[in-house]
Amino acid sequence: MIHYSESDLDSMDYVRRINLINSCSGYKSANLIGTVSDDGIDNLAIFSSIIHIGSNPALLGFFTRPTSVIRNTYSNIKSTKYFTINHVHESILADAHHTSAKYKPEISEFDFTNLEPEYKPQHAAPFVVNSPLQLSMEFVEEYDIVANNTILVISKINDLYVDGKMIEKDGFINLSRGKIATINGLDGYSIPKLKTRFNYQRPKPLSIKNDI
Amino acid sequence: MIHYSESDLDSMDYVRRINLINSCSGYKSANLIGTVSDDGIDNLAIFSSIIHIGSNPALLGFFTRPTSVIRNTYSNIKSTKYFTINHVHESILADAHHTSAKYKPEISEFDFTNLEPEYKPQHAAPFVVNSPLQLSMEFVEEYDIVANNTILVISKINDLYVDGKMIEKDGFINLSRGKIATINGLDGYSIPKLKTRFNYQRPKPLSIKNDI
Repeated sequence: MIHYSESDLDSMDYVRRINLINSCSGYKSANLIGTVSDDGIDNLAIFSSIIHIGSNPALLGFFTRPTSVIRNTYSNIKSTKYFTINHVHESILADAHHTSAKYKPEISEFDFTNLEPEYKPQHAAPFVVNSPLQLSMEFVEEYDIVANNTILVISKINDLYVDGKMIEKDGFINLSRGKIATINGLDGYSIPKLKTRFNYQRPKPLSIKNDI
Repeated sequence: MIHYSESDLDSMDYVRRINLINSCSGYKSANLIGTVSDDGIDNLAIFSSIIHIGSNPALLGFFTRPTSVIRNTYSNIKSTKYFTINHVHESILADAHHTSAKYKPEISEFDFTNLEPEYKPQHAAPFVVNSPLQLSMEFVEEYDIVANNTILVISKINDLYVDGKMIEKDGFINLSRGKIATINGLDGYSIPKLKTRFNYQRPKPLSIKNDI
């Protein structure tokens, strides 16, 4: 095993450090967030920080950086309160990743990729055509994270659209049947295959302790 | 596409709802958090909510439920300030998942699984033997999430231990070379293979817009 101490990390060059730290928490979700500005300009950006917060109410969160540079997603959500989350199918990996480029607010990423916007009735923000799992989200609250000056945005799920072949009898969404991506670090992508599901776990009886 | 509205979700039976909502954000990290109580009793629990918050300072976060039921991990972190994060190798999937069973505080999960504790000098909390990627963490701050009464725990990376074969030249940790798991929903596990890495993306010139 290689050991990196805190001082090793602190003295590391910038690129090596961000690659290492961004890959060390494990696999991340791959999601395109769709928003629209008050001026009607669509925005689409890839995020790897969307996370489950609770199922009742159905809440997701994501982290965003300060607003000192261009952060169209955050400012659009703050002004309109609504956005979409679209999962990344393996066929759109390169275009999805390209949305990480820092385009100006007057530019729609849909105009510089092969991704196509999908407008659904009663949703102002664009979805992504052919995304196998789409969510419409509503802003709930935010937290300023003091430790590194980021923002945690919490939102609730208003609508869930999912390719029927991914749904199992008990409601489980089999992401691998939708060929959905996961992110490793800043720029690595995998399309996992489901290996196994386990049952709900209960404590073993105390008598079993000596057998292990 | 199947459409679930908010009222569909609200009227759904409990198991179906938690399966659906827990799988809809995408792939999640699979990590065993190791802690030790003030009484010296080890605890190990699987988490799927560990997330990258920033690389400088190197911060990770995770969400935990209220302390009204048994939450040994949270109470141990609050009292000792230190814990470990251990990635789940494919060979320990079943035992890793079993740590989700609600054992009492006086029980160590190491005694009821084949997982073995690894003690490193200057770290009180146990690591997991043969985990290909291990982190020692220090509590930084926490946030009470009003929307659903959960807690966001933020901690910093003090030490990073990684199997050398997973590290690429630019610092990227290739998780698939470590046969590291990702979680789908509450109970699904995959061992992804890396498909591709992309370059850092910059905006395309405006002239390209008409060619797409």
